[in-house]
Amino acid sequence: MNLKNYITDVNDFPKPGVIFKDITPLLNDANAFKFAIQAMAQKILESEIDVIVAPEARGFLFAAPIAFATNKRLVLIRKPGKLPRKTVQTNYSLEYGAGELQIHEGDLKPKDRVAIIDDVLATGGTTEGIIKLIESQGAEVKKILFLADLKFLHSADIFKNYNLESLLEY
Amino acid sequence: MNLKNYITDVNDFPKPGVIFKDITPLLNDANAFKFAIQAMAQKILESEIDVIVAPEARGFLFAAPIAFATNKRLVLIRKPGKLPRKTVQTNYSLEYGAGELQIHEGDLKPKDRVAIIDDVLATGGTTEGIIKLIESQGAEVKKILFLADLKFLHSADIFKNYNLESLLEY
Repeated sequence: MNLKNYITDVNDFPKPGVIFKDITPLLNDANAFKFAIQAMAQKILESEIDVIVAPEARGFLFAAPIAFATNKRLVLIRKPGKLPRKTVQTNYSLEYGAGELQIHEGDLKPKDRVAIIDDVLATGGTTEGIIKLIESQGAEVKKILFLADLKFLHSADIFKNYNLESLLEY
Repeated sequence: MNLKNYITDVNDFPKPGVIFKDITPLLNDANAFKFAIQAMAQKILESEIDVIVAPEARGFLFAAPIAFATNKRLVLIRKPGKLPRKTVQTNYSLEYGAGELQIHEGDLKPKDRVAIIDDVLATGGTTEGIIKLIESQGAEVKKILFLADLKFLHSADIFKNYNLESLLEY
């Protein structure tokens, strides 16, 4: 199955000049979504992973079913004001601006082996912030897994000290 | 398994006087999350459902794995500025304020049999907005399914013309 058939380019979103990869057609096809989740889950099962870390919001769409399919714990990374208990916070930069990310204190344990799962790797700014948060908790980033990697938006050696994988490349 | 053991009360979040139901401990326990998803998926399989509709953002955490587990299409409801293609929009009121919700035009087809899946039913304002959006597309709301129903926050006959279910009641 060619999953690229279920990802469409939307021009000038969210800003003029940006070509946005819209993954909603993939979600809206039960077999394409199942295929994607199973292929990503297989990559998780090939590594020694304790926890899936899911960045808000589109990351939830892939991380949650993969955590279910692989029987792993699921820990959230959210924007400020969303996680109700005590959090730690980091700043990040991203393709369209900048922002802040939070994780609950104590959700990750020291030495937890973590996989970050998100939909699309663009400039990598968000992921860089997520790595910082995970490592601040003493946990280890064992894998960074995306549905799609937009290689034209970042350097070839991005996250070279980590195990970076994706199902699709652009 | 008593899933209530994995949902904790957080006082004064997001506002003073509110007791927030924090579901993140449930996500962070692989067996509890699997149990919840399987039990909710069973309720979907007992009905004739074509599409799972998932409201941003915590709804994604339950709707996506249930769509995967039941092999159903998954359609998103998001806040303005998040869905890249042409949308229809509705206003809604909720426990802590008011807002706007959008769905992509054409993601639902007329006569699609839809299940709305979200984490917690509070006042029902968000769900009311979601029902309007779904029905504006000519689709039919066949089931409304929550992890937890906070019955003390809404009238006993809420959504009485719909098939409302939850795993847990408070």
